[in-house]
Amino acid sequence: MEEKMSELKFATGTWIYGTVGDRYLLSGYREGLPVPERVKRIAGIKGISGIEMIYPADFDSGLDEVVDAVNSAGLECSVVGVDLTGDPKWKYGSYSSKDPKLRREAVELTKETVDAAAALGSERINIWPGEDGHDYPFQVDYAESWTLFRNCVSEIASCRPGVKVCIEYKLREPRARSLIDTAAKAVIMCQEIGMENVGVTIDVGHSLQAGENISESIALLSRTGRLFHVHLNDNYRGWDDDMVLGSVHLVEFVEMMYTLRKIEYADWLSVDVYPYREDPAAVVAESIGFVNGLDALVDRIGMDTIDAALHDDDPIPMLSLIREATLG
Amino acid sequence: MEEKMSELKFATGTWIYGTVGDRYLLSGYREGLPVPERVKRIAGIKGISGIEMIYPADFDSGLDEVVDAVNSAGLECSVVGVDLTGDPKWKYGSYSSKDPKLRREAVELTKETVDAAAALGSERINIWPGEDGHDYPFQVDYAESWTLFRNCVSEIASCRPGVKVCIEYKLREPRARSLIDTAAKAVIMCQEIGMENVGVTIDVGHSLQAGENISESIALLSRTGRLFHVHLNDNYRGWDDDMVLGSVHLVEFVEMMYTLRKIEYADWLSVDVYPYREDPAAVVAESIGFVNGLDALVDRIGMDTIDAALHDDDPIPMLSLIREATLG
Amino acid sequence: MEEKMSELKFATGTWIYGTVGDRYLLSGYREGLPVPERVKRIAGIKGISGIEMIYPADFDSGLDEVVDAVNSAGLECSVVGVDLTGDPKWKYGSYSSKDPKLRREAVELTKETVDAAAALGSERINIWPGEDGHDYPFQVDYAESWTLFRNCVSEIASCRPGVKVCIEYKLREPRARSLIDTAAKAVIMCQEIGMENVGVTIDVGHSLQAGENISESIALLSRTGRLFHVHLNDNYRGWDDDMVLGSVHLVEFVEMMYTLRKIEYADWLSVDVYPYREDPAAVVAESIGFVNGLDALVDRIGMDTIDAALHDDDPIPMLSLIREATLG
Amino acid sequence: MEEKMSELKFATGTWIYGTVGDRYLLSGYREGLPVPERVKRIAGIKGISGIEMIYPADFDSGLDEVVDAVNSAGLECSVVGVDLTGDPKWKYGSYSSKDPKLRREAVELTKETVDAAAALGSERINIWPGEDGHDYPFQVDYAESWTLFRNCVSEIASCRPGVKVCIEYKLREPRARSLIDTAAKAVIMCQEIGMENVGVTIDVGHSLQAGENISESIALLSRTGRLFHVHLNDNYRGWDDDMVLGSVHLVEFVEMMYTLRKIEYADWLSVDVYPYREDPAAVVAESIGFVNGLDALVDRIGMDTIDAALHDDDPIPMLSLIREATLG
Repeated sequence: MEEKMSELKFATGTWIYGTVGDRYLLSGYREGLPVPERVKRIAGIKGISGIEMIYPADFDSGLDEVVDAVNSAGLECSVVGVDLTGDPKWKYGSYSSKDPKLRREAVELTKETVDAAAALGSERINIWPGEDGHDYPFQVDYAESWTLFRNCVSEIASCRPGVKVCIEYKLREPRARSLIDTAAKAVIMCQEIGMENVGVTIDVGHSLQAGENISESIALLSRTGRLFHVHLNDNYRGWDDDMVLGSVHLVEFVEMMYTLRKIEYADWLSVDVYPYREDPAAVVAESIGFVNGLDALVDRIGMDTIDAALHDDDPIPMLSLIREATLG
Repeated sequence: MEEKMSELKFATGTWIYGTVGDRYLLSGYREGLPVPERVKRIAGIKGISGIEMIYPADFDSGLDEVVDAVNSAGLECSVVGVDLTGDPKWKYGSYSSKDPKLRREAVELTKETVDAAAALGSERINIWPGEDGHDYPFQVDYAESWTLFRNCVSEIASCRPGVKVCIEYKLREPRARSLIDTAAKAVIMCQEIGMENVGVTIDVGHSLQAGENISESIALLSRTGRLFHVHLNDNYRGWDDDMVLGSVHLVEFVEMMYTLRKIEYADWLSVDVYPYREDPAAVVAESIGFVNGLDALVDRIGMDTIDAALHDDDPIPMLSLIREATLG
Repeated sequence: MEEKMSELKFATGTWIYGTVGDRYLLSGYREGLPVPERVKRIAGIKGISGIEMIYPADFDSGLDEVVDAVNSAGLECSVVGVDLTGDPKWKYGSYSSKDPKLRREAVELTKETVDAAAALGSERINIWPGEDGHDYPFQVDYAESWTLFRNCVSEIASCRPGVKVCIEYKLREPRARSLIDTAAKAVIMCQEIGMENVGVTIDVGHSLQAGENISESIALLSRTGRLFHVHLNDNYRGWDDDMVLGSVHLVEFVEMMYTLRKIEYADWLSVDVYPYREDPAAVVAESIGFVNGLDALVDRIGMDTIDAALHDDDPIPMLSLIREATLG
Repeated sequence: MEEKMSELKFATGTWIYGTVGDRYLLSGYREGLPVPERVKRIAGIKGISGIEMIYPADFDSGLDEVVDAVNSAGLECSVVGVDLTGDPKWKYGSYSSKDPKLRREAVELTKETVDAAAALGSERINIWPGEDGHDYPFQVDYAESWTLFRNCVSEIASCRPGVKVCIEYKLREPRARSLIDTAAKAVIMCQEIGMENVGVTIDVGHSLQAGENISESIALLSRTGRLFHVHLNDNYRGWDDDMVLGSVHLVEFVEMMYTLRKIEYADWLSVDVYPYREDPAAVVAESIGFVNGLDALVDRIGMDTIDAALHDDDPIPMLSLIREATLG
């Protein structure tokens, strides 16, 4: 059971070659590339076999062309995410909008995303509802927002039960507070919806930002049958910095790798970084190199040895093992 | 439904007159008073009608004497909390300890707490499992800790179904990470236990520390039928400072008051402060004065007016109303 | 000395009517208005008598036209800020760039800003060096960055000693770490430059984000003769949310008002908000209303009463006074 | 210049064998050992050659006995810290107390500490003024606190100019806000005092807690001639967790090691951990093992290689070098 994950499958998102900017540089640190060029470049990154697409932005040229581009590049589509932040109409929310017309638009857009995913041979869509939440006190009726959101996701998940719907939680940004902010909140949403094809994307940087222990959240999602997808990046814990994996943390990522093996996760690891100033390919390749290094490290230490270490409450022996295996 | 809460019922805990110290001053900023003296003093604080006790520490003199002291002082016992941090044996957890003997001790101690609560005429106990969690990566098996904890609370809740078991969540401290860290995690625990008498204590300072919006958490707990108890204090959002309510925040506490009325909360509001350096009675009285002021403010603005403001997404009108009602 | 500030002078920045966006919505929540229209609208906000401009963005139509627009609108120019983030060439810093050509460009741009300020009759420029800092460990030589930055500001400040150069510190964003991150760091920079016309802009939201007490930082800047300018906004302490003043905090803003009077601050209070989704004029007007309310509150309580309260270490009496004056 | 530090000198503090407790377990997770026993045990920890003492707590048996114990154990005394938190009389501050009698007591106690350090052959004392600061708004006059503090340290530093006075900054705890909270604030204090024997202890965990980059703070302290002492521990950035070095972070500690070499730091590295639940010797030994591992890693990568990497703004090459050297 606790054998080496047969093969680590890495993907990354088309946004790494987009117009990456911030609120002070809306024109971007670099110009976004055309989607076919993004696909080609991503295919060229060492270690990548999957691509994460965004609907509708990546599909302007038509679904067939996108399918062709992805296939020609020798990539699999890991997931298609629906874009619920890139239009000002979502500024007060999508599925939880007080406006039924906007909720309808959000649901229809997501159903199209489901179709796009199916056409690309992907078995899942990603929902990151960045605008659903609030900024100020007294801005929303929390119970109402929750119910509206839940009903929309239920409808979406019903349309093609074979497609997995992944809800990506995040503590905040762009709203000061998100509706689905933690792994636990996402689990409650899934359980209330009560459908087998509704689960969770854990973005490990969001997990750090939310003050979670990544492995504890993975364990919670796994135990409740809701771990559908994994996004990888690193940060300083106070914000979603979307940095190279391993640029800040080590031991918790070793633990993450161990935990993913324990639960026999055998699906995509998607490098979700935001290379504002760096070369996107280098950022992704370095992150993949780090994960492969973690994987080899867990092998070197041995799953059984780690299992045994967890039978005691003392953390020092594991720290020593990791230190010896990395610093000699 | 949205009428003024018929009467606000305030309690506070015996620990305010305890040996309040910190890790650098273990002997305390002041000497703890004997329990009967604590009871007497708490009864003398303006606005207080309830007292929160700790088992076993407050019961050294015998249950009967405690019952007498509380009754003589004209107080009701709002809740009895079980002490799961005050003995080094709990250092690696109580209900989630890897040691079955310790788990048994924790359960038995809590059952005694249930009996004490019943004897005091209180319908509830409080469980704050401060030592259940971890400090380091690779220290616990997260799924195992969760299950062990759940099983213990199930057993406790079964022994007297008429007594409410309140789980108080907290992000961290004394452990670097707590097992039950957020309102959502507490809801999941309650739902897995699946008993009507298991619910949640929201300490609003813990909610701020966890990065939650207090009212959103109250709404979640209420909607799932798990809001059993409320602890009041304030902080700077980075730590459980246990300060006078209102010393830092205002608008979110107005929203809290509004939300408590909306859900028709009609139970204890327990001032849970930690007056390291200040006069305990003054800290509690000032906090109660603040809540009564909030209550009057909500009256002044009017529940209907607030309801109407929530139909729009614009937060400015409510901010203006609050400003005009407070700053003129 | 501690009389009412003779008149509170409020300004706001042209960016409130700009293309306000974020990294997920680079096209903005609304379209930016032409500069003359921004000037006109700002002049129409109740309580505003000053305008904060950005160079070069606000000066595309030529300096004379801007001067005309500001004068015609009956506004004073409070300060002109130099834009050191709005071009990707600054991505690794401006004055602290490793590239001497870029540093030269940054200095020349700032000198033009000084000229623009003079032409507008403003006695000061604002420098917010958002790109000077770093994201990753091992990215810059910290001592070298500091020296390069210092030398550039020295040169700028020398060109017109009658114009005040205000350095605005910020903990982070857009870089993960800023070079001038706290009030204390800004003071050291000023002292090393050693010129009387180099001082500091305190953005009170940046102060909250940096974990400072706002009044303590104002006292530090005042005591060292470096308090040149004040930016007003509010946030949840974890990020520069640029919210309506008073939407989160109260007591610390009362203290800020008291402190500004004590040090006899008699200059601009510039409302620096970022109305992503709200009406810019409403956000600014509400913030001004809040400050005027604070001002009246300090009058109601009385400077002498507050002074007296500070002679003791007990914070409760002041909290009671504020509570009674706001909540009755 | 950039050669290997000739020898790394490790110390640790006597408090690791003290009654380590927290506010919920004032009696401690374990009983403190007698001082002579602490000295003996510390001498037995692999890699330790120095001991950090606390005055007056460690000197109850008389100065001569302590000197004997330290000498007999073959240890050097790295520094003697004055205890300004362990008595409730300091609850509102020591050097910045509003009470002149208390300030006098604090100064005299510190002068005795200077004498104790001299007798032990140590050239320095450590001042960590944990109670100097505030909890609530409107609690202190910030400018007055600063001046009172400064005057006391000036007097202390004047009494034996040959003894270095190290001020240890910390963001907060036990007060909600400390007077000397960041490296920059400590530098300003030193510069205002203006004496060569007044400098700073950087506790790298305090630096993380304050949101600093450790190496940037070391560079600041070194450049201003104020880096006197180094305390080592790790944490999750939100609190002073005092954990095993390397249990959370890696890359920033590699950078710290590189920076210490660059500035030719050749003094004590004191492991300042708080082993609430763990074996103190194991915690210290593991931390030392980690630092020695970092030291060897910097050798393996090479100072010149790192220097060269810093000439560019791209962080990826250094991350790759570290990854390859640790994960293969």
